[in-house]
Order: sequence, then structure tokens, then C-alpha cells
Amino acid sequence: MKYHIGIVLVLITLLGCKESKEQQPMEVDKTIPVSNTSLERVEPPHWWVGFKNTKLQLLVKDDGIGGSSAQVAYPGVMVTKVHQADSPNYLFLDLEIDSTTKPGKFDVLFEDENGTKKTHTYELKSRIISAEDYVGFDSSDAIYLITPDRFANGDPSNDINENLRETTINRNDDYGRHGGDIKGITQHLDYIEKLGFTAIWPTPMLINDMPQSSYHGYAMTDFYQVDPRFGSLEDYKTLSQKMQEKDMKLIMDMVANHCGSNHWWMDDLPFKDWVNQQDALEAGQRLKNSNHRRTVNQDTYASKKDQAEMNEGWFVRAMPDLNQRNPFMANYIIQNNIWWIETLQLGGIRQDTYPYPDKDFMSDWAGAIMTEYPNFNIVGEEWSTNPLLVAYWQEGQKNKDGYESNLKSTMDFPMQKTIVQALNEEESWGTGLVRMYDGLANDFGYTRPEDILVFPDNHDMSRIYTQLEENLTKTEMALAYMACMPRTLQVYYGTEVLLSDAKKPGDHGLIRTDFPGGWENDTVNGFTGEGLSDEQTKMQEFVMKLMNYRKHSEAIHKGETVHFAPENGVYVLFRTMGDETVVCILNKNEELVELDLKRFSEMNLRGKTFHNIISGKSVQWNGTLKLNNKGVTLLTTK
Amino acid sequence: MKYHIGIVLVLITLLGCKESKEQQPMEVDKTIPVSNTSLERVEPPHWWVGFKNTKLQLLVKDDGIGGSSAQVAYPGVMVTKVHQADSPNYLFLDLEIDSTTKPGKFDVLFEDENGTKKTHTYELKSRIISAEDYVGFDSSDAIYLITPDRFANGDPSNDINENLRETTINRNDDYGRHGGDIKGITQHLDYIEKLGFTAIWPTPMLINDMPQSSYHGYAMTDFYQVDPRFGSLEDYKTLSQKMQEKDMKLIMDMVANHCGSNHWWMDDLPFKDWVNQQDALEAGQRLKNSNHRRTVNQDTYASKKDQAEMNEGWFVRAMPDLNQRNPFMANYIIQNNIWWIETLQLGGIRQDTYPYPDKDFMSDWAGAIMTEYPNFNIVGEEWSTNPLLVAYWQEGQKNKDGYESNLKSTMDFPMQKTIVQALNEEESWGTGLVRMYDGLANDFGYTRPEDILVFPDNHDMSRIYTQLEENLTKTEMALAYMACMPRTLQVYYGTEVLLSDAKKPGDHGLIRTDFPGGWENDTVNGFTGEGLSDEQTKMQEFVMKLMNYRKHSEAIHKGETVHFAPENGVYVLFRTMGDETVVCILNKNEELVELDLKRFSEMNLRGKTFHNIISGKSVQWNGTLKLNNKGVTLLTTK
Repeated sequence: MKYHIGIVLVLITLLGCKESKEQQPMEVDKTIPVSNTSLERVEPPHWWVGFKNTKLQLLVKDDGIGGSSAQVAYPGVMVTKVHQADSPNYLFLDLEIDSTTKPGKFDVLFEDENGTKKTHTYELKSRIISAEDYVGFDSSDAIYLITPDRFANGDPSNDINENLRETTINRNDDYGRHGGDIKGITQHLDYIEKLGFTAIWPTPMLINDMPQSSYHGYAMTDFYQVDPRFGSLEDYKTLSQKMQEKDMKLIMDMVANHCGSNHWWMDDLPFKDWVNQQDALEAGQRLKNSNHRRTVNQDTYASKKDQAEMNEGWFVRAMPDLNQRNPFMANYIIQNNIWWIETLQLGGIRQDTYPYPDKDFMSDWAGAIMTEYPNFNIVGEEWSTNPLLVAYWQEGQKNKDGYESNLKSTMDFPMQKTIVQALNEEESWGTGLVRMYDGLANDFGYTRPEDILVFPDNHDMSRIYTQLEENLTKTEMALAYMACMPRTLQVYYGTEVLLSDAKKPGDHGLIRTDFPGGWENDTVNGFTGEGLSDEQTKMQEFVMKLMNYRKHSEAIHKGETVHFAPENGVYVLFRTMGDETVVCILNKNEELVELDLKRFSEMNLRGKTFHNIISGKSVQWNGTLKLNNKGVTLLTTK
Repeated sequence: MKYHIGIVLVLITLLGCKESKEQQPMEVDKTIPVSNTSLERVEPPHWWVGFKNTKLQLLVKDDGIGGSSAQVAYPGVMVTKVHQADSPNYLFLDLEIDSTTKPGKFDVLFEDENGTKKTHTYELKSRIISAEDYVGFDSSDAIYLITPDRFANGDPSNDINENLRETTINRNDDYGRHGGDIKGITQHLDYIEKLGFTAIWPTPMLINDMPQSSYHGYAMTDFYQVDPRFGSLEDYKTLSQKMQEKDMKLIMDMVANHCGSNHWWMDDLPFKDWVNQQDALEAGQRLKNSNHRRTVNQDTYASKKDQAEMNEGWFVRAMPDLNQRNPFMANYIIQNNIWWIETLQLGGIRQDTYPYPDKDFMSDWAGAIMTEYPNFNIVGEEWSTNPLLVAYWQEGQKNKDGYESNLKSTMDFPMQKTIVQALNEEESWGTGLVRMYDGLANDFGYTRPEDILVFPDNHDMSRIYTQLEENLTKTEMALAYMACMPRTLQVYYGTEVLLSDAKKPGDHGLIRTDFPGGWENDTVNGFTGEGLSDEQTKMQEFVMKLMNYRKHSEAIHKGETVHFAPENGVYVLFRTMGDETVVCILNKNEELVELDLKRFSEMNLRGKTFHNIISGKSVQWNGTLKLNNKGVTLLTTK
């Protein structure tokens, strides 16, 4: 432990009251003797110099630490405030880290009312890449969504951890752990890259020390620990590093709304309002679940009661609902998320259950992150099929109530549902493909449609192949349309080999089926192609061609969009940028159709040579275009 | 014919070309001899002094008038331009009527290339009421929508007019004329007032000289003539006068999109682009119908082809599609509508098929009217159940494309559909009443929800009683909810006596059933109550109590709105203003429900005395509220 001579130290003396007090810098007695005991917990475990926000608030947990004062002696670092919590075992320490501060380690000296002293060595690191280089996913990306427990078991040695509550591994149990892990993803990066994906969103990989169903990751019990059954922090960093080498973006799945009921702080909550309904929780009373009435966030007529039940109700009993209106909780979450961005050089965040936490906090949260990382991206999950609700959450939307989310991207549940309905139903004047046409027209209501994330399915809904009645042609149509729309695209792992939950549609366990080939001795191997059915192989090749074309297509990434209302079961969408025109033709007719190209004369394509993105065949844009079968035809001038 | 000595006349000489030319005032030879022949047509037939817009454009039709010059000698009136049309039999005359102009008559002198002169005496009237006193319908109004041919036959002498194409009258023919007329409405104003309605919207009553189905009125053959089978202009003025005496508003149904194929101008169209697809029409080719793809107006991706087909396609072959992009047509429509507002002292306009005409014209049209009548109101018919499309058309909406409609009111097709679905389906977490709750939440997307017109049904859709499976209770629930919502309300005639089209749901002829008692010798009489069934009488009393309460309820007209998410089949909506609180409770349970009032404590109603708007009974707001039956409970503190 070192003291830097000549530095003004700040001594904080708490007067036994719980209120925060402004701290005045004062001369420090540099002769104070200190013991070297380590504290139970200081979070964030370390920080960095060079953030725009020069404030840092440390959560300090230790037996009886609450009444202590705190001192720091480090150039540029000042303790500005010490906050006592409701529990005597917590202290929240406000540091000001000015822009001149150099990276390095320093001691924080705590002294309690009895004069007992403890120190904690804290580190401020230097940032590895510049803030501007944290480039988030955008419409040029196709994101591969993975449920890590179910993708590939790269390290069987970490499958079971006897120190954790769920110790079994059982691939026959849909809700048990199957052994997939971070290394499993890292080992198959080549495959994902070959498929044409440019980003990966694994569902949460932080520790879920829950007695059961811990595989899904949404019940975090420590926001700073990787689940050892998925691997180590080093494994996570390696994944990130390898992805950066491939110019791929790593997206982290964050949860601001809740934690797991076995979260470490649940035994000794710092404040009386750390989680919602804490009174009832502590009194052992029944807790109210969220009413899930998501409209209360927008509805100007919503009762306060309904608003409270939505935002303060718990998601489920096993997931305590965090109170983000507690400013210490708010800081905790924001700092934690920035810590992960910086630690893993993330290429984006996916925020779970977006409309459930306090919406003003969510705006502050996204604002804080986007201020630090101006080119970053965050997508929020609003599971609503109403475009009005989805649009409300997107940054720049001119909401009547003045709400500004600071959130670049929301999820396109409306189009997902519409596309499935459109492809499954019969064509008529008002049904079938026209629903997609009308649905896409709703884009006029979005600030930037291209930043909205569309997806055939995800880890919470039936597999697209199942939703489309196990029909390969329709699955291709859905995927191609989504890939060509002005959107950011996300595809769930295994879509390329037609994973299905048809046995029990919508069952979470089944949706999150093991990827074939992810486990040693799997008889079918999606990575190598071994044992795949003809349909699976066909789909995999289709996905590969589609995604690899999309990867380099400026017309799709940022081109103009023109579409023509479906006629006679054929719907045509054009994307154009410069010389590149991509045409996505969806045809519902089983028999031969001769598409008269005159109708599209405003596109000025007459005489141009197109090639078919899937078959590679060439065709002239002249007279009529023969569509032999039901399905999608993807043409490009490039 | 008189000349005012000492006035500067304006002489316009057309040089045989069709281009417009700026006109220079010049000395007029007051000795020019003039013949007194009358012209075939000058429209508007007269005008008024004192408009904000000092321009007036006269359509002049007469054999060979096209090449003529025009002179006017009247203080303050100047001919600024004469426009020749494509047809030699038309002339469009631009007059400037400055703010000093006095009401009076003056002659317009026309002289053709051969020196033949004709005059037309034109009148500028003084305005009867001030522009500000044209107060349009708003959320304080409940509008009674009437199909005049089917409401009451007040004057059997005008039933048949041998000079018109459709000469038969047949009450057994759903699509024939039945004889209802303006006098029929005027004679039953007391009834409509007693029901509690404050405004009447009759579907169009201008002449439809069509060979069949002329009863509906939407195929106008002269925009300045009342259909003689409905009565005379004087009858229309009398209706307006009697309504004003009752402080009721008369709403006129206007059609800017099309006319009837027997419109007088169809034999000799002034311009080559007076109607859309005029080339094909004149070549005797097949005309394209509108593609009815209404989203093209908003869709930023819509192809030009689809836009043209939507806006230039004809509604039906019998209704030529007017080309409002022809500036003379645009002026014609705007002036015609102002002429009617001024002639009938209208209390509002309902514009038919709003998304079909050119949308920039529609904005200009509404803007021109609202500029002249700042307190007026117009409601546009956008038949879409998508709130995004409905919202787009409302004045003040911050549309991404910058479009400003100048239209105060649009129609609430989304809520109409939602309410019917909600009442017809079983309750569950996501179905039933919650659809109404979620639907009303969409109001955050509207500029001013209270200006949107909600309705149980209208003349183009199945009767609400039929939509709600001929269930009185559900019909009451729908009506009560709509009456209490922050909306302007419209109810179709006969809803109060449960008119039904169940025999063939949706059939236009059946929807527009004769009102019982509107014809001599009707065995059932809704006006007197004679012969009504118990259910009909119950409904009529319900409507009367509901509408008469609504009429004076500031809480409903402009109060705050709070609603509570449906729970256990009960959905509660509050409207509050000052001391008045109105509670609308919708209950789907057949058995007794004890509604715990604690949930509504934020409304601060504990201990207050309410009375039931329908039963008149009093109840204390305390503990629980007993709901004995399925249905609506309407309570008020007033």
C-alpha cells in the first residue's frame, strides 16, 4: 500500500446517520495506520480512466462497513460522498475520477466508528480501444442468436460444478442443463462465419446459481461472474477476441429488470427498496406478479395502480424485481453494463423485458451507455405486435409525452407475426402476402426502420419451421424477406438445419433443442453436414447463400426500398443502391407464373442482367419472368 | 342590368390560345352594347363578400364560350385572369373580390372572337353569420347518422320525379328508392333531440340522377343541386334553420373523390384531365378500378404504380374519379363546399373515402375550409383498423414525411372493430375486454383522441346489434363505452330500436332498413313507441338516458380519463372533470360480482354518492360494489 506524498486526501466521516452528505476535501493525516484486510465485495471490481462520465459509485459490502469513513489518495481521484445504506453491511462510495487521472492502483482506506481500519486496493485500468471503436450491430449485420447451454459442449470438464445448486447434467431433460458452453461457441466460429453471420447474441452467460432451470441464464445471481458451467471470464474474453479477429460483433444479453432469487444480495439487501415489494418479501407475504399490461408505459389513461403492478410486480417468484428508482441500484446496473462492454469489447447489448423496468431509468441507462459509446447499439425487447408500442421505444420518436428512450433498436414482433400469418394463410384481396405489404408500410411510423431487429423466431417462441407448418419453401420465403427488408436481422441457431418444436409447439425446452453435432458422438452433425436430411442440407445452403450475399450488399444494408402490392399471389420487393438492385419475389402459386415485368417499369431495369442469389443462374429483365414454383426468387444485378 | 358610372372596368381579351394570361386593368368602353342572353351554367351560382380568401374562380359553361373575353364593372371586383379550357364550351374566370366589396349584383360581360356578347348577372351576398360562429361538431356532440331515403317519408309528393332516370319507388327493393326525404328528417327533429343527439349527419342529399341505386347519394350528378326526391334547397335550408333553433349541428356528407357517371359535365369535360383515366374513358377502353391499397398514402416504400392505381383508379364504373390535381377541379370542389357551408350554415362536413383523392389536394381543401371557418370541423373517412393510418390523417400529427392534413377528425374504425371483437369473445388474459383496454391505450398515438369519431356502426357496415349477435346487453355495453370514451360519438339511425341486418349480414340494402314509423301506415312506430318489442323499448330508453346524460357531461366532453386493466371480466373506465366523475363499468360475468373498490383508491371517491345514469338508483362508493348481471353500469356523481 502506497501513499502519494503531497496529495490532498479526502477524509469522509459519517456521523452515524444514513443520509448522504456533501463531502468537503480536507487535509489527511498521512500517518494513519491501516490494516490490510480484504473486503467481502467491492463493485465494480475495477474501473477505467478516460470515461466521459467522471463519476464512479462503488458498492462496498463488508460486515459492519456501513458506519465507516473512506479515504483515497490518488492523483485525480476524489471521494465526493459516502452513502450509508439501510443495511449496516453496505457502503456506497462516490468517486470523482478527473480526466487527468492515470491508470493504476490505489488503496481505499475505511475506518469505522471504533477506529478499525480496512483497506481495499482498487484499480483503474487504461482503455484498450477508443470509445468510437465500439461499433454496435446495425442493418449490415445478421445476428446469430444462441442459447449457449444448447449449442455446443466445447468443454465437458465444466459441465458439472459441485459448488453450485444445480449439479446435474441431463440432455434428456428439456429444462435441465445440457453442457453447452462458451468454448462450444468459440470452437464453431468458423461455422457461424461460413453461414454468413456477422454477429452473435448468446443468451445470458452470467452465473445463475439457481436450483433448477438454470440453463437459460435470465436469473442472474451475480452480475459480475460468468457461470462456470459456461466457462471462465477468460473464455468469454477469448470468444470476444476471436470474434473481433473475424470482424464479428459480440452482443451481450443484459437484464435490468430482475435477478435470480439466489442472488448474493438477497440475504442482506442494502436498502429497504432495493427490490420491488421488498416489504412484502421481508414479511414473508405473497408477492404480486407483474400484471404484464405493457401498454401502461405509453397509455396516458393508465391508472397508477396498473402502472405500479406492471413495473413493480415480479416476473416470477424466482426472479426478484429490481427497483431501478433506487439511485444506487440505477448506478449499479449502468456501471455493471459499462464494465462488461469495456471488459469484452462488446458490439452491442440486448436488453431483456424492456417495458418492465422503470422507463425513466431505462432512458437514463441507454443514454449513459450511448454517451460513452456513441457508435454502440442496444436492442430492447418489447414483445408486442403493435407497431405503435414498438415505435414508442425507438430513439428519436416524437412521442406526445416527450419520452426519449435513447434506444436505437427495438424488436420487430409485429412483422414476425405478420409474416408467419401471411405465409400460412390463403391468398385473397385482404389476406396472405398483402399482410406483409401492409405491415412493411407501417415503417412510416418508425424513426429508423433499418435499426429495428427482425427475426424469424427467437429463444422464447416456436421455431420458424414449426410456425410455418414444417414447410421448407415457406421457411425460405420468410427468411429471404426478412433478410431483404430494411432491418437488422437476427436468426436463431439451428434455423439453418430446420430445428423444430413440433412435438409440443412453443415448449421452451424443445425450442432450445441441442444443435446436432454440438456434442461428442452426436449422430447428426450440423457443423459438418454429416447425417443431415436433404431438406436440412438444402436449408443450410440456402441460409449460407442468403446471408453471405446479404453480408456485402449495400442495397440491403442501406438501399432504397420499393415494393409493389401483391397481385395474383406474387409480391415483389426491390432494394437499390447505386448499381446494385436486389429483387425479392415471393410467389404463392404452385403452378407456373409468368410475371409481366412491365408493371415494374419505374425501376428502370429493362435489359439488365440479374443473377439468382441462390441458384446462380442468370436472367434478363425483359418481357416476363418465369416463376416455376411456389417460393422465393432472389435476384441481384451484382 | 346596370352599370356603375365611374368604375374602372376590366377587359379581358383572349388571343385564341389556351394558356392563362395575367390580366392588366384597363379603361373600359362603357358604350359596349350587350345582349341579355343567359349562359348555360355559371358556378358557383353566387358568392359572398367577406371571405379571407379574396379569390373566386367561376366555371362558365356555354356553347363556344371558350374564346371569349370577360369584363366586370363592380367596385372591388376585378377580373384577374380568364382561362380557356380544353373544351371550347368552358371558361374559367378568376375574380379578385377585395375586402371593401359590398354585397350586390353585377354583370359579367362576355364577348367572343366574332364580337357576339353575352352577359351574366352575378350576385355577391352578405354573410348571415360570422365565420367564427360556424362551430363544428366536437366531443360534446353525439351525431345521429341518417340515410335519408330510409328514415322518414315526410313528403310523399316528391317520391317520384319523372324527369330523372330512376323513376320507381319500391320499399321492397333493398336497393331501390323508398321515399324518405329532408322533410322526414325535419319532422322528426323533436324525436332526435329527445334521444339526446346534438347533431345530424345525413348521407348525401345532392342529386344522383343515376338509373339505379340512386338512393344512397354518393354518385352526385350535380354538386349544386339537391335531389328533388329528397326535397328542395329550401327544404334543406329549413332543416338547417330548425336544427339551429334547437342548437343542433347539421353535418353535410361531401364527396371529393368522384361523381356519378351521369354528372352533367361527363358529356363535355372541360379539360383533358378533368377525371382520372380520361384518355381511356374517351377511347372507350376498360377503366381500372382503384387498387384500394390505402397504405400507399403513408408508405414510404410504395411504388409509383401502386400510388397511381390507388389514387387514379375509379371506385366503380358508375363513379368517375375526379382529378383534383387539375387546379380548376381543385378550386371547383373547394368553392362548392364553402358554398354549401355558407348556404346551410353547416356545423361540419363528413368527407367520403378520404384516402382516395389526391392527398395534397385534401390537405389544401381542408386547409381552405378551416382558414375560412376556424371553429369548424371536418371528419374524414379512413376505413382502416390500423391506428397508425388513422393517426396519420389527423391535424397536428408529426408525420415523418411532413404531411399535415388540416383535418381535425378521423374515424375510429380501429376501436369499432376492437370493441365488437372484445364483447363477442371469451374473456382470458389476452382476449375480451382487455382488447378495449389495449385499444384505448393507443390514444397516445393520436394528436387529439377526443376529436376522433367513434361509432357502433355506420351505413356501410353491419348493424351493431347484428355484429353483437343480436344481444341487447352487449349492444348497451358497446354504446355506453363509446359514449364515455374521449371521443366524438356517432350513432346510426335505428340503433335505438335495434335495427338488424341479420338476415344477410353486411348487405347494404338491409343495413339501410326503413326506420319503423317513417312511413304512413307503418305498423311499428319507433317515433311513438307503438308496436316496439320490449327489447326495442328498453334500448330506446337506454339510448335516451345515455345520450341525454352525455349531452351535458363535461367529464365526458373534456374530462380526464383513467382506466383500470380488466380483471376477472370487469373493466372500469373513469372520466372526471371538477366535481363530476362518470364511471363506466363493463362486466362480462353472468353471476353476481362484488367489485372491490379499494383497487380504485387513487380516484379519491370513497364515501361519495353516485347515481346510476340508467336506473336512477343511488349508491355509496364504499367497500364493494355489487354487479348483479352481465352488462354495463354507468355511475355519476352529478
